[in-house]
Amino acid sequence: MTISLYCFGESGNAYKAALPMELSGLDWRAVYVDFFNGETRTAEYRNLNPMGEVPVMVEDGLILSQSGAIQHHIVERTGRFGGRTDDERREILRWVLWDNHKNSSYSGTTRFLMNFLAEEKRSQEVINWLQGRTRGAWQTLETFLADRDWLVGSEVSIADFACCGYLYYPEPFGFERVEWPAIDRWLDRIAALDGWRHPYDLMPGNPSDREN
Amino acid sequence: MTISLYCFGESGNAYKAALPMELSGLDWRAVYVDFFNGETRTAEYRNLNPMGEVPVMVEDGLILSQSGAIQHHIVERTGRFGGRTDDERREILRWVLWDNHKNSSYSGTTRFLMNFLAEEKRSQEVINWLQGRTRGAWQTLETFLADRDWLVGSEVSIADFACCGYLYYPEPFGFERVEWPAIDRWLDRIAALDGWRHPYDLMPGNPSDREN
Repeated sequence: MTISLYCFGESGNAYKAALPMELSGLDWRAVYVDFFNGETRTAEYRNLNPMGEVPVMVEDGLILSQSGAIQHHIVERTGRFGGRTDDERREILRWVLWDNHKNSSYSGTTRFLMNFLAEEKRSQEVINWLQGRTRGAWQTLETFLADRDWLVGSEVSIADFACCGYLYYPEPFGFERVEWPAIDRWLDRIAALDGWRHPYDLMPGNPSDREN
Repeated sequence: MTISLYCFGESGNAYKAALPMELSGLDWRAVYVDFFNGETRTAEYRNLNPMGEVPVMVEDGLILSQSGAIQHHIVERTGRFGGRTDDERREILRWVLWDNHKNSSYSGTTRFLMNFLAEEKRSQEVINWLQGRTRGAWQTLETFLADRDWLVGSEVSIADFACCGYLYYPEPFGFERVEWPAIDRWLDRIAALDGWRHPYDLMPGNPSDREN
């Protein structure tokens, strides 16, 4: 049974689910969601996901949203990327939650406001405030990764895939790899994993589709 | 072994952990964190929690932060509030993540900016933007709870304790129960649970300590 992942290229939250699916060799396909033309606000989409968000995973009648919940399902299905001990499993959940709470949430929102929201709707004051939040999160990551290869244990895990979700995108949102050397090396380690692909290569849709 | 929960009364994130500990009858004690005088920014506290956040749970050498990770640990310890089936467990994790990503994160931040940050540092534009986000989250909750007693399955779970974390506080942050009748009834259901206590009764510290 092929897993369907409702997603689009610009969504770092979808990337967090798509990347471990791809790297674990799961049989999956991307179902493009036309977010920028309002598809997630339709009644049909809300029926699929009352939270109205991307990604959504559908597998043989199981419908699941929230990238972190999908990631934990991938771990259960494949035995990959979920840690080796109870301590590691707890730590992984902790980092996935932290990412959702403090890291990707602010990075993704800042990138959206700076790049995808109509210019007349942008507030520089809000962007500045959000960028303060993103920098706090990146500093936590930078400090923690200074003497570690991976966030938890001795192998890459869904914790890494959660926290890196927005950090490969080229659009400006305040993140410059040169400022964060430990994060920079960690992103290179993830990108060197066998089968790794950039979000715009792994999922359909990218900003150039909407140009002109 | 008594569990120590590093917390303070104003923290809805700490309440999400303290409430299921209390309701499940775990042997726990609150360790007051002097957040408003900068304790979480000290090197000592960062040594306990590199994320610099409240709550932190310490139990017999296990140190855990992020309320959702502590909640899942409580479920494992007690068998309570974690759902009965794999489907319910997945749904619970989904709601806990959604709460961290879209609900408590915005509610807690808005309440902080409006009540606890020095007035000269407040930005009304940021508060307005955050309030838009909180209303979107409350609408998702309101719609979902319209025909349900609990977020997942037929019993209260850590999903409910996550999503209600900031909604009992009296300080103004844009949430008025009268506007959200389904949420209002659900908050009453939670408050009617045997042993329920308000955050300011369950954890040490509240705004009146800092008056004068």
